[in-house]
Amino acid sequence: MINVALMGHGVVGSGVAEILLYHRDVLTEKIKEEIRLKYILDLRDFDGLAYAPLFTKRFADILDDPEIRIVVEVMGGVTFAYDYTKACLLAGKSVVTSNKELVAAKGQELLEIAAANNVNFLFEASVGGGIPILRPMAQCLAANTITEVLGILNGTTNFILTKMVAENMSFADALRLAQQNGYAEKDPTADVEGHDACRKLCILAALAFGQHVYPAQVETTGITGISRTDVDYADRFNAVVKLIGRARRLPDGHVTAAVYPALISRAHILANVNDVFNAILVHGDCVGDVLFYGRGAGKMPTASAVVADVLDCAKHLTARKYLYWAEGAPDFVVPATISETRLYVRASCDDPTAAAKAASDAFGEELFTIRDNAAREIAFLTPTGTEGVLRETLAALPCLRDPVVYHVID
Amino acid sequence: MINVALMGHGVVGSGVAEILLYHRDVLTEKIKEEIRLKYILDLRDFDGLAYAPLFTKRFADILDDPEIRIVVEVMGGVTFAYDYTKACLLAGKSVVTSNKELVAAKGQELLEIAAANNVNFLFEASVGGGIPILRPMAQCLAANTITEVLGILNGTTNFILTKMVAENMSFADALRLAQQNGYAEKDPTADVEGHDACRKLCILAALAFGQHVYPAQVETTGITGISRTDVDYADRFNAVVKLIGRARRLPDGHVTAAVYPALISRAHILANVNDVFNAILVHGDCVGDVLFYGRGAGKMPTASAVVADVLDCAKHLTARKYLYWAEGAPDFVVPATISETRLYVRASCDDPTAAAKAASDAFGEELFTIRDNAAREIAFLTPTGTEGVLRETLAALPCLRDPVVYHVID
Repeated sequence: MINVALMGHGVVGSGVAEILLYHRDVLTEKIKEEIRLKYILDLRDFDGLAYAPLFTKRFADILDDPEIRIVVEVMGGVTFAYDYTKACLLAGKSVVTSNKELVAAKGQELLEIAAANNVNFLFEASVGGGIPILRPMAQCLAANTITEVLGILNGTTNFILTKMVAENMSFADALRLAQQNGYAEKDPTADVEGHDACRKLCILAALAFGQHVYPAQVETTGITGISRTDVDYADRFNAVVKLIGRARRLPDGHVTAAVYPALISRAHILANVNDVFNAILVHGDCVGDVLFYGRGAGKMPTASAVVADVLDCAKHLTARKYLYWAEGAPDFVVPATISETRLYVRASCDDPTAAAKAASDAFGEELFTIRDNAAREIAFLTPTGTEGVLRETLAALPCLRDPVVYHVID
Repeated sequence: MINVALMGHGVVGSGVAEILLYHRDVLTEKIKEEIRLKYILDLRDFDGLAYAPLFTKRFADILDDPEIRIVVEVMGGVTFAYDYTKACLLAGKSVVTSNKELVAAKGQELLEIAAANNVNFLFEASVGGGIPILRPMAQCLAANTITEVLGILNGTTNFILTKMVAENMSFADALRLAQQNGYAEKDPTADVEGHDACRKLCILAALAFGQHVYPAQVETTGITGISRTDVDYADRFNAVVKLIGRARRLPDGHVTAAVYPALISRAHILANVNDVFNAILVHGDCVGDVLFYGRGAGKMPTASAVVADVLDCAKHLTARKYLYWAEGAPDFVVPATISETRLYVRASCDDPTAAAKAASDAFGEELFTIRDNAAREIAFLTPTGTEGVLRETLAALPCLRDPVVYHVID
């Protein structure tokens, strides 16, 4: 029998408790050993629950109990989560978490402590909720050199953008609907400003490229600035607007990492990823493009990923999983502007026909432009080029005023 | 140092050799142990190769060498592959294979022999080429009860159907193009008749539902009967035609498994899976729908999946992976006609308007029908219902002659 402690009984935590307690037979059958949930740490009272006797308010009950071999951390935040996780690992207990903020901030350090103490620190549920992504990247794609990770990493913003694209809603109305449905928090900042997607991208990039990538190193733009006008132009270019996270390994070993809204061609596999679904495209040198898709959040999807990690810890109490990355060098992440892309541009101008000609001349090819003579506005997609060069070319076109610019993914 | 032998130096085998030999440093770094390719078994001569000294024509060289801990079987077929794999497992060597025919026919027996000898039998590359699917199903979704597996499992047929849908080609022309591009064999039977998809579905169903499913238990229809007419009608119903494999767990524990062409709504994530790409949708009770997508075949994608399994064996020389299913009960698989579906129907009739009314009356709702008065033909989608009942209703409509029927996936 393997004893497990759970820290945090919120949305995900209560799901973990339910699976561990009520699916115990199935889990035991799968790993041929019994998993017992012994403690649940939470400062709140849950007297009405059938499993109320498992609750404790003292972390020491867990830390000092040598029977506890696996601890699940689903409290959220970094302060306590970090202290408790570190203490458990140092005490020789494996830790499983769904806490992306913790892993993005402290993943490398905690992995190192886990290795030094011959225990596991697993966090499959921290990216993509229930979607298997980190373990497949680390294990199944182990024979590949990964060169790119591109994903729709946040379900809330994807829900909002889906409503803006498919139902012509404004950002404000779509956000309100997301809040009504429980997909967005009352304070939606972490989602709509891209912070949540940024943390997940940090974890994916670290695992894919071998060094810690910190949130502060990732240029992050959210979706609050997306207007209906640009969603409509995107439609006329046969594309949809999505918030994406993208990290690429450059030939010299440096990486770029950024979160931003982008126009995705309707023929692209990511274009059909709608509502609260997430999807992550990984490019390996041998395997080519591989995509992982599913619900990126939610109580039971996330809880089931946490429990799968618990089972994996239970099977490998004395064997270390090869999940690992090194400390990040300060210059590991370089500005994304040096990598190749294509841009969507919408700009005001005095004379749309003249502006279209000037843009075609500047970018060196006949551009397909959409012109709105009444609004004195044009929109076009640039050819593929280095982002910095494309932006410079644009800046050198004074006839285009206040350009709105997004990346394009074909 | 861990010594590996490779049996078979065809398309996949040569890819495995190249990765093991030329990416040796990267692999060693990943698992902190050196992997050495010691023998390659093949009856042909490869004198010109830089690694020609590794070749042998004698299986006994591998079997009798106690240094060999891991054997890769990529010979194909069942006869020799089965004998050699069994002999290696009995001798205490782990075996990795990409041979779907072998796993679909003998998987349960070989897994049992592997368990009895405390070694691993891994076959990630047998389904979906380089796409991680079996390990994520077994490990990451371990806390789920899987209720359905639905996938585009064969790249050749998907390429042919993509050309028929997107470029208005006939089946014969699209097949010829697939052969010219090296995607289809000179004898394309195994692909176009659905046998290859059937074997992969057997493996997925066995892993998902816990008992061996044999190819003979899976009703299999290929794509040779698909006409341009039905591809065009599908388009008018805003759907595309794909060859799919589908296995479902019924509430009573029995399963259904079938391979057939189906109409997939353009809004469905599987509709954008084009060319030689594969995708597998797995439904778990906790996680909901999860999709895995990528190149389903090809030298390097498949080889990279084989090598990932080799690394996993190397990390777990003394620990067993929890990949397992039981012997299949004779009544485990039941006819798919008892499960819910929706059907596309195209039929000849004397009077399309009268036939449309008769069909609406019979199915109990006002059906949207497409009528071709000149060709005296109608097409429609039925409501959702038990397949057997839908087919009976259809058979009881004498005004519809020679109906062509396909499943619909929304």
